Amino acid sequence: MEKLTMDKIVNICKQYGFIYQGSEIYGGLANTWDYGPLGSRLKNNIKDAWRKRFIQENKNSYEIDADILMHPRVWEASGHVGGFSDPLIDCKECKTRHRADKLIEEYDHNINGDALSEEEMIEYIRKNKVPCPKCGKSNFTDIRQFNLMFETHRGVIKDDTSSLVYLRPETAQGEFVNFLNVQRTMRAKIPFGIGQIGKAFRNEITPGNFTFRTIEFEQMEHQLFCREGTDTGFYKFYKEYAMNFLKDLGLNTDKLRYKDHEKLVFYAKEACDIEYLFPMGWGELWGTHNRTNYDLSRHQEYSGKSMEYIDPEDNSKYIPYVIESSVGCDRLTLAILCDAYDEEILEDGTTREVMHLAPSIAPYKVAVLPLVKKYHSEYAKELKEKLSHSFMCMYDETGSIGKRYRREDAIGTPFCITVDDETINNNIVTIRNRDTMEQISINVDEIEDYIANEIKF
Amino acid sequence: MEKLTMDKIVNICKQYGFIYQGSEIYGGLANTWDYGPLGSRLKNNIKDAWRKRFIQENKNSYEIDADILMHPRVWEASGHVGGFSDPLIDCKECKTRHRADKLIEEYDHNINGDALSEEEMIEYIRKNKVPCPKCGKSNFTDIRQFNLMFETHRGVIKDDTSSLVYLRPETAQGEFVNFLNVQRTMRAKIPFGIGQIGKAFRNEITPGNFTFRTIEFEQMEHQLFCREGTDTGFYKFYKEYAMNFLKDLGLNTDKLRYKDHEKLVFYAKEACDIEYLFPMGWGELWGTHNRTNYDLSRHQEYSGKSMEYIDPEDNSKYIPYVIESSVGCDRLTLAILCDAYDEEILEDGTTREVMHLAPSIAPYKVAVLPLVKKYHSEYAKELKEKLSHSFMCMYDETGSIGKRYRREDAIGTPFCITVDDETINNNIVTIRNRDTMEQISINVDEIEDYIANEIKF
Repeated sequence: MEKLTMDKIVNICKQYGFIYQGSEIYGGLANTWDYGPLGSRLKNNIKDAWRKRFIQENKNSYEIDADILMHPRVWEASGHVGGFSDPLIDCKECKTRHRADKLIEEYDHNINGDALSEEEMIEYIRKNKVPCPKCGKSNFTDIRQFNLMFETHRGVIKDDTSSLVYLRPETAQGEFVNFLNVQRTMRAKIPFGIGQIGKAFRNEITPGNFTFRTIEFEQMEHQLFCREGTDTGFYKFYKEYAMNFLKDLGLNTDKLRYKDHEKLVFYAKEACDIEYLFPMGWGELWGTHNRTNYDLSRHQEYSGKSMEYIDPEDNSKYIPYVIESSVGCDRLTLAILCDAYDEEILEDGTTREVMHLAPSIAPYKVAVLPLVKKYHSEYAKELKEKLSHSFMCMYDETGSIGKRYRREDAIGTPFCITVDDETINNNIVTIRNRDTMEQISINVDEIEDYIANEIKF
Repeated sequence: MEKLTMDKIVNICKQYGFIYQGSEIYGGLANTWDYGPLGSRLKNNIKDAWRKRFIQENKNSYEIDADILMHPRVWEASGHVGGFSDPLIDCKECKTRHRADKLIEEYDHNINGDALSEEEMIEYIRKNKVPCPKCGKSNFTDIRQFNLMFETHRGVIKDDTSSLVYLRPETAQGEFVNFLNVQRTMRAKIPFGIGQIGKAFRNEITPGNFTFRTIEFEQMEHQLFCREGTDTGFYKFYKEYAMNFLKDLGLNTDKLRYKDHEKLVFYAKEACDIEYLFPMGWGELWGTHNRTNYDLSRHQEYSGKSMEYIDPEDNSKYIPYVIESSVGCDRLTLAILCDAYDEEILEDGTTREVMHLAPSIAPYKVAVLPLVKKYHSEYAKELKEKLSHSFMCMYDETGSIGKRYRREDAIGTPFCITVDDETINNNIVTIRNRDTMEQISINVDEIEDYIANEIKF
């Protein structure tokens, strides 16, 4: 297959029902995307897989679901009110607006704009006469910091500053502000973890690359609370745990790599990304961060509530360290779609589009196809209805059997069951494997166990 | 048990880890609630049960996951920009603000404030000298309509009205604006359905009753698209389908009732609520609405895109009718918690708190308890780890076995497995049933099948 482009994957997602442009019939709302029947199920299966590994099978691990709207003081404590902003700069000539760091990065790919201070950025732009990408001139305003949090107002009096609330820009604070609640109600002993899956919002000026960076996105996040001294061990553990999870989801290991952070935020002790090779290049997929006791200390300071844990072993008191393991669910879904898509040239010269999704996360697990509509559809429909109690199941009676196989290949359905005379006479069906295209014959009564076993995560 | 009050259920939810006050360490953000480890898992299990009935097992049914942020024109088409507002009135004496309809309803419980026009409300208040609940006087301003949609701004220029976006006040429009996309990509034939689970936001002035009415909430919704003439049949079908689903979730039928709408919105043909008897009285739980072809017609008008469906049977063209089946997920979770809670007086005079949650939706399916920590904990821990690959599984070695049973009863764990000498010597465990308190002995190898069978939905 020739190199997959982002445009191509956007089109495939739209064509087959994975992801549509948001509010499309109104011309779209920039950088919003709606998951269609296949995409929503795929994403949901990925969430369930995460829940299994990070909560259910993970010792002393608890999931929460905190509201998107939180007390504004939370974002003062977290530093987002003061420091969560993009450095914006305007071209005085053509009046377009840009992110200063991105302007520099596009001008010189070897520079990490993120690592520059505001002063360094403006100095660099002026010294090198960095041109405006729109008009080509280099005549910019000063840099202004623009906060990325979406604001809204609670209650009926809009001017009242006390009614200002933010759409959370990250889910992590939900875990931190609920640390005491979870510890108390679950009688949890350190080390223990709190995970969450939920939406967050960032008013970014330059999002893009399909669902890689959007203004509304979903995070899957796990915070391990541990004692200082054990933190580096857990940091290493979660770096590997995340990588193994990605492999279990079927991602190609050649397209995954660790990237240690060169510049750490001041409170962090260790930080590492797992990057995936997206069509537009290597991109951050998963972050593992040793956040020390910064987050809980800040909340202790701002809320006045003690965040100290009393260790039942030795009665020592301390504010726990936090190891954060965080992934964007939309970004992961995108990586999985890019990774799974393939075009195979078959012996007869035709091209087969296949989504090689791991059976555990494929949207539909099985398609039931009557070989000949006239003779086999009644039986096939009944079988489909029966299997639907156990699995997401598709039924298709339109077109040649070959075309129907192709359609299921393209949406990643791992198994196609063909109902033919042999089924009606002897209760034997053919099960075709999406990846190998091999077929086996089994008794109708064995289908459920067979599929259940194949789709295990 | 004496009558359950809302205060009591709030306390139980907080004490055991079902639901906490949102941003609690900062004094809370009014009417926001965070789901703890038990609540988030319970709610998630309810969502999964809904997905099974309304999508997986439901013929021609597709789930989507649309963004919360949608194009502002969507809300013009839906009527929310013009008409989704609360009638607010201020007391001139004590400066408090009230909803005029609620003021009237509290004054005379026989009046449905919802059904009164603005003029009728102000006339009633003045004629009857309805008093201010705060100061007792009756000296009010005129009524002003306050729109319930939360507003925010996209991009960096706040004044620009073109950047105004709303937090969706309902999920339904996500299904409507994606009607064409889903129909096309899934090659769906009418009748077919689109369902969605997602958050919505309403800037209500008088929310309350715990999670019954909150400013941020989650809806589970299914829209069936059908041909005029078949609509009433499907309307009846979904009324019953919803009721059966509630029964399958274990809700007490004595606390459920149908309530037909007396006053229909102008475009609706039929509408019915299923009400549940909450601690504060009967409250709306589930709505089934025959919305005719209003929604798609409006979107056709506002978007300029044809919403007509061409019937492959007879080539006729029509805008489909919509049967909406919609439930608040938070409200349903609350109903289930209220319904499941019980206090039983045992023979020895002690009280047993039990959450009689249906095993299919209980947060933890099984608890593994070593009879004596010293002798049985090693085996029990291994068993817990093994079972955790299949189920949400709890481990508890603290306190007497009786106390541990009580703890599991209170959080609704349907099965407790006790590991004792018999287990270590002969691989036989005791499984205790939460509801009957009866115990059976089975082989360790049979546990998984036993539990899997008992928790089926």
